[in-house]
Amino acid sequence: MSSHHIVKDKQEPALLIANGAACKFELMEELLGWSPYVVVLDGAIDRVLSLGIKVDVLLGDFDKGGVKVDKIKEEQFPIEIVHTPDQDKTDLEKGIEFLIEKGFPAVNILWATGRRMDHTIANLLNLIKYNSKIKLVMLDDYSKIIPLEPGVTKFEKWYKAGTVISLIPVPKAEKIETSNLKYQLDSETLEIGLRLGNSNEVEKDGLMSVKFEKGKLFLMECND
Amino acid sequence: MSSHHIVKDKQEPALLIANGAACKFELMEELLGWSPYVVVLDGAIDRVLSLGIKVDVLLGDFDKGGVKVDKIKEEQFPIEIVHTPDQDKTDLEKGIEFLIEKGFPAVNILWATGRRMDHTIANLLNLIKYNSKIKLVMLDDYSKIIPLEPGVTKFEKWYKAGTVISLIPVPKAEKIETSNLKYQLDSETLEIGLRLGNSNEVEKDGLMSVKFEKGKLFLMECND
Repeated sequence: MSSHHIVKDKQEPALLIANGAACKFELMEELLGWSPYVVVLDGAIDRVLSLGIKVDVLLGDFDKGGVKVDKIKEEQFPIEIVHTPDQDKTDLEKGIEFLIEKGFPAVNILWATGRRMDHTIANLLNLIKYNSKIKLVMLDDYSKIIPLEPGVTKFEKWYKAGTVISLIPVPKAEKIETSNLKYQLDSETLEIGLRLGNSNEVEKDGLMSVKFEKGKLFLMECND
Repeated sequence: MSSHHIVKDKQEPALLIANGAACKFELMEELLGWSPYVVVLDGAIDRVLSLGIKVDVLLGDFDKGGVKVDKIKEEQFPIEIVHTPDQDKTDLEKGIEFLIEKGFPAVNILWATGRRMDHTIANLLNLIKYNSKIKLVMLDDYSKIIPLEPGVTKFEKWYKAGTVISLIPVPKAEKIETSNLKYQLDSETLEIGLRLGNSNEVEKDGLMSVKFEKGKLFLMECND
């Protein structure tokens, strides 16, 4: 699991591990397979190190205490320790901003769901907040969450027939057009409290596309 | 854990167990201690029965197969089996509507979070959708989620100092007034994408209150 001595390419998405519930190791392993630049928030560091993962950056306000920075520095050499005391931002926001600053084009985010619901919701909304600056994807054992931007650029991806796709407006997305979904949207609006686009599915093997003109939208690939 | 032969009082909140992630048994036990009327969605029934819980109603579209209704009827006698084939509603919506129909004033909802994110979000939004018809609370190991209604009625509850309280607008709540919180809101607006009221806390032992004039708001009691 060590990624020592591998030159890390900023063209690859970084991996940001947050403070939420751990995912299955298979998912972590899949993402580590690309030898990403690994940033871990301080609240998760002990759990991450116990999995034998090589960490590039440990970031946080270290306000809870208990993180043995000197020991980690020695064992994980080379590792960058980034102290971010700003209390107006969450550690996840600081982690994303750090990676924007470093020039990464994309980040996969793990362990950002599944514990406190207020944190889960705030973390999800950060996808929307930062997505125009850095391409973000949040993953857990059941869901892959991709924030989509409005405008002329179409989201397009190859899927197997039957893949479950949910479209969740945040809080509203207008003039949505889809292709290759079982329940097509043709210039339609989704809005929290009125209409969600849950549990749609890809009709046949091939490219599925979504575009919309205004608002914000999550695309979620979900499985039970 | 059996609640056979107990006359169930409709003044007590019913317990609705959905298809999401199981909670710790302590939380389930705490709610069962009130001998609630127990409604279980079909996707969760095997997991619920394996915990030795007496179920009053098994409800769902039974579309996945695999639920041994005859065996359950025999072992759980008396149990009501409610078949709800409507594909335009989720099983959770059907469960809530069933309890409204039965005349229950309140429901505690368990296992409605923690797996597929699209389901978690849809389930959360159902709290908002039905809360004016039946008092709803959703619970898991980390969060107690209470939907609040706008208007003159104030939400008021006794808390210990330091209890973490998050106020999450869905998607907007206006003219929010709070008392006994560390970061007071004084006729302020919270809105998704602009400002959340995450990780506030109760200032001193005693009553904490929230009211607001317009929109929708979740109050979440959260712990790590």
